[in-house]
Amino acid sequence: MVAFNRTTLEEVIKKRFFFAPSFQIYGGVAGLYDYGPAGCALQANILDLWRRHFVLEEDMLEMDGSIMTPATVLKTSGHVDKFTDWMVTDTINGEIFRADHLVETVLEKRLNEDKQARLAELEGTNVVASKDKKKKNKIKPVKLDENMKAEYENILAKTGNDLSKPVEFNLMFESNIGPTGQLKGYLRPETAQGQFLNFKRFLEFNNDKMPFASASIGRSFRNEISPRSGLLRVREFTMAEIEHYVDPNNKDHPRFDEVKDIKLHLLPQNIQVEGKTNPIEISIGEAVEKKIVDNQTLGYFLARIHLFLIRLGIKNERLRFRQHMPNEMAHYACDCWDAEIQSSYGWIECVGCADRSAYDLTVHSNRTKEKLVVRENLSEPLVYEKTVLEINKKVFGPKLRQNAKAVEDYLFRLDEEQLKALKKALEVGNGKTTVPGTDGKEYEVFSEFFNIERQTITEYVREYTPNVIEPSFGIGRILYSLIEHVFWVREDDEQRAVLSFPPRVSPFKCLLVPLSNNPAFSDLVRDLSARLRKLSIAIKVDDSSNSIGRRYSRNDELGTPFAITIDFQSVNDNTVTLRERDTTKQIREKVDTILQVLKNLTEEEITWDEVMTKYPVFVQQELDS
Amino acid sequence: MVAFNRTTLEEVIKKRFFFAPSFQIYGGVAGLYDYGPAGCALQANILDLWRRHFVLEEDMLEMDGSIMTPATVLKTSGHVDKFTDWMVTDTINGEIFRADHLVETVLEKRLNEDKQARLAELEGTNVVASKDKKKKNKIKPVKLDENMKAEYENILAKTGNDLSKPVEFNLMFESNIGPTGQLKGYLRPETAQGQFLNFKRFLEFNNDKMPFASASIGRSFRNEISPRSGLLRVREFTMAEIEHYVDPNNKDHPRFDEVKDIKLHLLPQNIQVEGKTNPIEISIGEAVEKKIVDNQTLGYFLARIHLFLIRLGIKNERLRFRQHMPNEMAHYACDCWDAEIQSSYGWIECVGCADRSAYDLTVHSNRTKEKLVVRENLSEPLVYEKTVLEINKKVFGPKLRQNAKAVEDYLFRLDEEQLKALKKALEVGNGKTTVPGTDGKEYEVFSEFFNIERQTITEYVREYTPNVIEPSFGIGRILYSLIEHVFWVREDDEQRAVLSFPPRVSPFKCLLVPLSNNPAFSDLVRDLSARLRKLSIAIKVDDSSNSIGRRYSRNDELGTPFAITIDFQSVNDNTVTLRERDTTKQIREKVDTILQVLKNLTEEEITWDEVMTKYPVFVQQELDS
Repeated sequence: MVAFNRTTLEEVIKKRFFFAPSFQIYGGVAGLYDYGPAGCALQANILDLWRRHFVLEEDMLEMDGSIMTPATVLKTSGHVDKFTDWMVTDTINGEIFRADHLVETVLEKRLNEDKQARLAELEGTNVVASKDKKKKNKIKPVKLDENMKAEYENILAKTGNDLSKPVEFNLMFESNIGPTGQLKGYLRPETAQGQFLNFKRFLEFNNDKMPFASASIGRSFRNEISPRSGLLRVREFTMAEIEHYVDPNNKDHPRFDEVKDIKLHLLPQNIQVEGKTNPIEISIGEAVEKKIVDNQTLGYFLARIHLFLIRLGIKNERLRFRQHMPNEMAHYACDCWDAEIQSSYGWIECVGCADRSAYDLTVHSNRTKEKLVVRENLSEPLVYEKTVLEINKKVFGPKLRQNAKAVEDYLFRLDEEQLKALKKALEVGNGKTTVPGTDGKEYEVFSEFFNIERQTITEYVREYTPNVIEPSFGIGRILYSLIEHVFWVREDDEQRAVLSFPPRVSPFKCLLVPLSNNPAFSDLVRDLSARLRKLSIAIKVDDSSNSIGRRYSRNDELGTPFAITIDFQSVNDNTVTLRERDTTKQIREKVDTILQVLKNLTEEEITWDEVMTKYPVFVQQELDS
Repeated sequence: MVAFNRTTLEEVIKKRFFFAPSFQIYGGVAGLYDYGPAGCALQANILDLWRRHFVLEEDMLEMDGSIMTPATVLKTSGHVDKFTDWMVTDTINGEIFRADHLVETVLEKRLNEDKQARLAELEGTNVVASKDKKKKNKIKPVKLDENMKAEYENILAKTGNDLSKPVEFNLMFESNIGPTGQLKGYLRPETAQGQFLNFKRFLEFNNDKMPFASASIGRSFRNEISPRSGLLRVREFTMAEIEHYVDPNNKDHPRFDEVKDIKLHLLPQNIQVEGKTNPIEISIGEAVEKKIVDNQTLGYFLARIHLFLIRLGIKNERLRFRQHMPNEMAHYACDCWDAEIQSSYGWIECVGCADRSAYDLTVHSNRTKEKLVVRENLSEPLVYEKTVLEINKKVFGPKLRQNAKAVEDYLFRLDEEQLKALKKALEVGNGKTTVPGTDGKEYEVFSEFFNIERQTITEYVREYTPNVIEPSFGIGRILYSLIEHVFWVREDDEQRAVLSFPPRVSPFKCLLVPLSNNPAFSDLVRDLSARLRKLSIAIKVDDSSNSIGRRYSRNDELGTPFAITIDFQSVNDNTVTLRERDTTKQIREKVDTILQVLKNLTEEEITWDEVMTKYPVFVQQELDS
């Protein structure tokens, strides 16, 4: 197997227009990318599978909400205050760095120097010596990744200048809504808030049944200080988010049994605390039982995320679920597991699965006074005793007159313990005491003003704010990681790169090529194109004058899994060949048979191996060039 | 038929959560809407059909580009200067109006008064009298639409105050990219610019073949001064745009013959100039032949747009294509036809089909110096004579020395006529004259410095900037218009509204209802749900305790075309009933048969009428409640 080379992959991505920097003829803008026909179709297929796997499979309530969001909403959610990164400015030339990147880089640099020092010691030399003598001693410098090297050099170039103290920079793009400029807005940093604000409508749409989930696919924005790593850290990205609303007293999941035997690679907090990074492999059933994963609903989604990613073509051995350490959690989260996918950039968070508890619904409800709760009819009423206060209106109002409201408001805010204390105070004071009004003044009150008593309360309805489990997918990160996982180069020819997408995911399903641009083939090409389209099979016709081998390899780079070739025999006997991308093997059958086989292959109802057992391999030297 | 009532429709839209104002619990923001599960699925189905009808059918190159756009791009495209509306401010209270809305309103008010006056005249009374006596005379005031009435009242309330002079307000949302605040950006007002900037990549992806189209589906933004009319004028919207690149010398379309007999309702400029609004019905073939529509490509797209809208469920008699008058064209367009759909808001532009000529590619190319052209190998080389200048390097450089560059640069900018004039000047000056250098100084030049001669030029390649035909779809406007077109109310019961979406378009395809919430049904519900999902049929299960009639009518309001009902007989003999929404008729067959019929119905391979001829109608009194 040819070793992975990111430069080769990046050339394929560019040449086949999976994606490219936006506005490039204007010099481009860091962190903004355009998806070309191949990337756009790949993304659409990933989203289509996502919708089937999550939304349709579980009757989730999908919505499509506004990107432009008034500032008050994001103030309440905590994003205005907490959705920030620290940045530092070079005080001489004004260049801006993300502080944690800088620290990371410096630490890495020191670690690297340390490594060199240790190596030097082992070999009986020392670092100072190595610096002085340069290449004369035997120290092999650790080879750095090219990007990192460039960044090191960049940072090192700055070391002569002073840096400002770090300041917080809010990562939301700001704008103004309407012509007055008075309504400040932000581009949403996540789709989640739009979902929370519609909670009441969703619950009603779901006939008040719990648990349930809402979902949304859409563009979100983060004004990154220094975008890098291609699609992995960008300023504009497509997310797919699920908000699953669940009873905080019962986080079991009705379909947990369906997934309990699925094995995941887990990296819980306790392993990380020990400084280790090797995940354990464990069934999700066992993980929940052992409380490694807190509850069934969280566990259910981890398993479903795993199934989804594997189905896309992500390699299991390069996928792990890492639990957030308490100090890295977002401001709204009380537990979080990231699905991390390994690529040449390291292990990258591609899906976050957070328990946001009742945080968001509570803060929005408090701010707007709109109840965002579930009311549940109790099968057996809840009966309990409680100390309550009842105003004696005949005395209270006439005695306190214009001050009655201020005192009443104060009294109704008292909790049980405070009521008991008030009762005690009245007893001690022989039926008289003073209380503060909500106006800040003190008032005398008498025991005949109100009754404070134990009462039996019977509740028929339970009211609660649901907790939210949120699987949140970064589609661009998944898409890029997937491309790396399915990328390889043919051993016999390093110029021939292949992207082995599963058929359901690949941008195009079938290449249609006439052997040459002889006009004898054009009717058959047109007829077959129409039939393939009718079967909803996305095709790419290549009737250019390039050699057939060249055209095959171009489509190998696009990840097109199958190719139908029309040759002179086709015109005579209505047979065509069907080629498979990874094996480059072909069969030759009547058009009707090929179309049926192809349909089954693209819908992943049969595999190519199965096709190979059913139909003879077709060999024709000239097509294998 | 029950008369259309927008209030009833709006209640259904709200109750069934097709869409609703965004951020409503915070008071909402004008012109921003969230699509709920029904609206979101409806939109997804419209976009899916759009992609099949346009992108897949014609191998268009779809892309997904950035929303955040650097200011320079939109400065070049003309949007910074020309994408504006006029606004006026109430000088007393600061309220802001869109000037044309205000003018429109005032004119409408006057027209209305005029109408009353005419009526009054006819009836032998007069307006003043009618105002005085109110309902005592026979004048019936023209009943105004409720929204318009509210707006009139709003405007009329202002008439006491002075208005500012109209000023231009740019409709793009502005923001800053990156932490320095120095890179100004706008949220794109259309997806088109992102497509134009990728022209070179598209052309390469298409193996340099012309004509071809790029396409994009995505969110765009317009910071409307005063959003109104629900989804018809909003600040954030989903567009689907096609940019079809065509040789300006040949705007024929290879597939025009497929559509030439399709009849459209056209409202060309000349009819509008006469003050008429009745369209002509004419085949697109005839319209192009008679030059009513300029060329085949424009005609082809008008016909394809027509087919797409009709397939969605838009009524032909409420669809027309209106040609823009010269004074209403966007700054980039040289011809434009709008597909206008009639709703209770009047005739609304839902699809624009503009000929943007070479405008955009030219301005971006000029600004960036990047060639955005097609190079076409000529089958016969182009041979012509041309006056050209050739430097005599042996003399030119040594004589002019450090000034040679400035003079050379000047000389190479001269066109043919200027070269001829220079040659003449040398002759007149006996082999000597002066020319300006690009440094602004004057230089003496001599005839031995260069030769100016007629030469025969042979070109093997033709280079041209393609013209762009742009069909641009406002998805929200189409979605709302469609809802109005398929909305009706059952005659027998005004509480029972129905949305008769075609099966391919409807948000959910099938309702699954057990007769009651008897546990005997739950296995069958679960089993059928799973089988329907496997068939990719979007279902909605309603096992609530509401009556079966109530559950049917709830799904009639969602536009769900079919319902499977599970009753006690189902448990015994594995038969279920299948109900059709519009007729409320049912059949009863084995589950396998019903699933097959349903699959064919949802894919629009058979119609309900055909089903009715094949299977007996099932009548069961209790289900018809």
